[in-house]
Amino acid sequence: MHTRTDLAIERYLDTEDGAGVRHSICRDGSLEISEVEILTADAAKRMGKEKGKYITLSDEALGDTVMDEEKRRALAEALAEKVEALLPIDGCVLVVGLGNRQITADALGSRTVEKMLVTRHMAENQSAPLADFRSVCAVSPGVLGITGIETAEMVRGVVEKVHPCAVIAVDALAAREAKRIGTVLQVTDTGICPGSGVGNHRVGLQKSTLGVPVIAVGVPMVVYASTIARDALSYLVEELALPGEEQEQAVDGMVGRVTEKCLGELVVTPRDVDELVGRVASVVALGINMALQKHLGAEDILFLTNDHI
Amino acid sequence: MHTRTDLAIERYLDTEDGAGVRHSICRDGSLEISEVEILTADAAKRMGKEKGKYITLSDEALGDTVMDEEKRRALAEALAEKVEALLPIDGCVLVVGLGNRQITADALGSRTVEKMLVTRHMAENQSAPLADFRSVCAVSPGVLGITGIETAEMVRGVVEKVHPCAVIAVDALAAREAKRIGTVLQVTDTGICPGSGVGNHRVGLQKSTLGVPVIAVGVPMVVYASTIARDALSYLVEELALPGEEQEQAVDGMVGRVTEKCLGELVVTPRDVDELVGRVASVVALGINMALQKHLGAEDILFLTNDHI
Amino acid sequence: MHTRTDLAIERYLDTEDGAGVRHSICRDGSLEISEVEILTADAAKRMGKEKGKYITLSDEALGDTVMDEEKRRALAEALAEKVEALLPIDGCVLVVGLGNRQITADALGSRTVEKMLVTRHMAENQSAPLADFRSVCAVSPGVLGITGIETAEMVRGVVEKVHPCAVIAVDALAAREAKRIGTVLQVTDTGICPGSGVGNHRVGLQKSTLGVPVIAVGVPMVVYASTIARDALSYLVEELALPGEEQEQAVDGMVGRVTEKCLGELVVTPRDVDELVGRVASVVALGINMALQKHLGAEDILFLTNDHI
Amino acid sequence: MHTRTDLAIERYLDTEDGAGVRHSICRDGSLEISEVEILTADAAKRMGKEKGKYITLSDEALGDTVMDEEKRRALAEALAEKVEALLPIDGCVLVVGLGNRQITADALGSRTVEKMLVTRHMAENQSAPLADFRSVCAVSPGVLGITGIETAEMVRGVVEKVHPCAVIAVDALAAREAKRIGTVLQVTDTGICPGSGVGNHRVGLQKSTLGVPVIAVGVPMVVYASTIARDALSYLVEELALPGEEQEQAVDGMVGRVTEKCLGELVVTPRDVDELVGRVASVVALGINMALQKHLGAEDILFLTNDHI
Repeated sequence: MHTRTDLAIERYLDTEDGAGVRHSICRDGSLEISEVEILTADAAKRMGKEKGKYITLSDEALGDTVMDEEKRRALAEALAEKVEALLPIDGCVLVVGLGNRQITADALGSRTVEKMLVTRHMAENQSAPLADFRSVCAVSPGVLGITGIETAEMVRGVVEKVHPCAVIAVDALAAREAKRIGTVLQVTDTGICPGSGVGNHRVGLQKSTLGVPVIAVGVPMVVYASTIARDALSYLVEELALPGEEQEQAVDGMVGRVTEKCLGELVVTPRDVDELVGRVASVVALGINMALQKHLGAEDILFLTNDHI
Repeated sequence: MHTRTDLAIERYLDTEDGAGVRHSICRDGSLEISEVEILTADAAKRMGKEKGKYITLSDEALGDTVMDEEKRRALAEALAEKVEALLPIDGCVLVVGLGNRQITADALGSRTVEKMLVTRHMAENQSAPLADFRSVCAVSPGVLGITGIETAEMVRGVVEKVHPCAVIAVDALAAREAKRIGTVLQVTDTGICPGSGVGNHRVGLQKSTLGVPVIAVGVPMVVYASTIARDALSYLVEELALPGEEQEQAVDGMVGRVTEKCLGELVVTPRDVDELVGRVASVVALGINMALQKHLGAEDILFLTNDHI
Repeated sequence: MHTRTDLAIERYLDTEDGAGVRHSICRDGSLEISEVEILTADAAKRMGKEKGKYITLSDEALGDTVMDEEKRRALAEALAEKVEALLPIDGCVLVVGLGNRQITADALGSRTVEKMLVTRHMAENQSAPLADFRSVCAVSPGVLGITGIETAEMVRGVVEKVHPCAVIAVDALAAREAKRIGTVLQVTDTGICPGSGVGNHRVGLQKSTLGVPVIAVGVPMVVYASTIARDALSYLVEELALPGEEQEQAVDGMVGRVTEKCLGELVVTPRDVDELVGRVASVVALGINMALQKHLGAEDILFLTNDHI
Repeated sequence: MHTRTDLAIERYLDTEDGAGVRHSICRDGSLEISEVEILTADAAKRMGKEKGKYITLSDEALGDTVMDEEKRRALAEALAEKVEALLPIDGCVLVVGLGNRQITADALGSRTVEKMLVTRHMAENQSAPLADFRSVCAVSPGVLGITGIETAEMVRGVVEKVHPCAVIAVDALAAREAKRIGTVLQVTDTGICPGSGVGNHRVGLQKSTLGVPVIAVGVPMVVYASTIARDALSYLVEELALPGEEQEQAVDGMVGRVTEKCLGELVVTPRDVDELVGRVASVVALGINMALQKHLGAEDILFLTNDHI
């Protein structure tokens, strides 16, 4: 029984058996870049994640209210580099902002899309100054309960009209540990898997369904309250030094009862999640914009998108 | 040279030559229903509007800050009747909210879509209580400058996935007379024509482009400032009793100069346009929802969409 | 060591020693009304709450997404009755919305104030139709970090100008149990105590500081994540049947460590807290408006405030 | 009969008789600084403005969608200089944001207040790094229709608690010419006069009512539609070369009739007024913050207020 997390690195740190998984980690100042690659179907099953690469960029500065602009910029640059490495060299890219804009913690996708440097519509009358711009378009398809249309279905409809060479999907994630809320960026070449994200999307956005590579960029915005309870219990059980198997069972049983009683779909967020989402969206948008418009510096992009970090 | 208006009734009242146009009008209390039908290509050209039916429902109560709930409800019911008459008897309907949600006066479409009773995603596991519901889905595709994708292109992509039997497009309009802001609903079977609306859409949403009937519902939210200037001038010229042709030229010339000087894309709106848009969106949404779910009363729909008028 | 809760009823249910506290409870359908009266300084100290009356109205329907309008209305009526009983018979009343409007879970106060039927400014030219209206004014003073002025200081300034006969203060609360989020209304004649609320106000709003009676109306909007952890631990400790004192210590120690590690000021909320706050604000505003304008029915008030529940 | 404008410079340019008024103008690149000083009671009456200094800073770049950051910064710096010259050398300053935050064009005041660097509450435990900060507090009192309390009354209440050495009041203005919307900043030592602003405040904020100097900073956000009509008419009358007095009468009569018919309280704004208000608020806030915290550069202030221009 897995606790709920959309971060591959958290799942990896949780499992004892590392067979079929490659893991590396490097640090650059306060920025930590870790890479988990799930190589085999076995490992994928064991970890409950698709085969593929999961890159995690983390810097606690991202979550700080007192902002360290420099660290944010470094994070955006690292994100740009990782996204670019997964993108085809040229061709139009479609950026998709997932989630429900009316639920603060789930609005990261659509708020990032609002900050994208969209250029596809200018390409037609492409004069000299625009010649260097990569063609980019962006949509926030909304959620099933509001549109009556599966997100994947709608994105497929747009993909068939626009014919992008790749899709970048941005989504809010659920983490296992509260300290990762707003401080970690995950980039993966596996796309969006069914059941993931704050919004628990029913259908995935993946190469198999869209026909083009899908790069997913996600940031944890919540931890399920049941996860907090489970962690507290595990911690206690460990302290009390119950024998291993008994531990596992004791915790599982109790989490079940606690959860049933009261926690349900409750999530843990910082009180100022509204502001945090805006700040994180700016960093993610800057990173993606830099990956797409390699001839522009961070300053130029912030100017053109009327944003700041 | 036409002044800018998206209301066929205003154009009709302006032209002296009624050949090829059928016009009727009826009143029910403070509610006035007028119908303009453009029958010939000649008349269409002369009026600068597509051939087809334009129904105008108007009640000044709609614009009042002190709300008369009863009149609003009557207006919604009249709208429901007119929309229903233009819809195929059954089949899924896609509601499209046009305009830019970030510009208050242009947000009518997307704010109406937020109040739609969306049912298509429930139809799959259709148990008894849902059997009577018509399948409805809804999208707000955003505007070209924000997505990089032509609205018509995106809607076409969605239409090809969803296969609706008809599209209902909701949009904010420009009127010629300020008294029509927020007080008139126009329903037409011609769809959305290129260049219309507050947002001046470049490409239309019509049967010829989407392959299914398109019913457009629009409400004036602005008057162009240049129209106000032109009207003031015309009024004066009339008072001064200059000879007819001279008049026309004098006014056209001066409007040109005044406009160039300072009016540009400026629009006239009520100061409380934010609130007005919300109120009008509720009436439009109720009307469309009633046209689509004929087995439900106004009360039920307001309850299910968590709205009020 | 108390867990954090602003609800006197939760504290009462937690303590074993009921000396100096009067408690009564009654039910009416799904609506439960409980009253805790702290009578002695001793009891006040033991419970960490001021001497006075704490009335709790609860109905789980308030938190439901599928709204039961009738239950909401019953709750608003019960609130009206309790508030009215604590108010002077006549004189101007100042309603104060506490909290930070930019933090969703803390915006209950200011969102309630937006729905108040404000009449004080009409009283001057009081013609017949207004003669029955009680004079009401309302402010949302904001929070210290945004204004640089203590809330209590600012309210005192307004009170000295307006000379109300009483103040009604509305605030978002923290509860101990997640099931009380958005489902419980607390009314108290003790005012707002220092350190309470989601925003942890530093200074109180009480009769002793403002010079007029202060009635506080609050609704829990969050549970501190540390409370969830503490409850999970307590539960486990109980199951393991450790001896009483040892238990207490074990839990306190562990909560300390867990909290330090990661929970800090994190709060637990429903994912759709944005919508929940709006819904609760409507019920609270209706109740207070009914307490203040006794000659108006719920329908009239909803019409005049352009609201619905 | 004056057309409606809150800009002294527009009134000055309109009057033929300059007796009792001193006017100077200077340019610095695209930035124009003009100063109108009304010296006599006679001139004040003739111009419909209070005696005092009115400084106008204008740069059309402020209204541009494509932002020229450098020009904005220059404007903010010029504003800082002018505000500082009118402020007492030290002492706490209260910044008051006027207007209704729920009406886009009237929200300039409260949106500026949100970006103020508020320090008064930190002064108590003033350690070394804060020693250089001037004490600043800020409120958005809302409007009479929403609070039931006259703005001036509420501000007086706060002033009596906080004892500032001066008040800076920020408000959205009405201009006579559309080209001044969002492109002109007016600074005056006369405070806010009754009947001015987009919201037509009934009561003024002036030294005579508050007991401390009041510096008003305002930016035109609307032109009344009736002004546009009047200008168009004047223009025509001029072209037709009617004799002077006849002209005046003709125009006044017609404006009266046009206005009665349809224009009322309608205002002219740019379609993207939402965005414009945000941009202007950033420039105004930066300027005022720089006037108040002279030891900080523009960069530091933007960083501390998490803003950009």
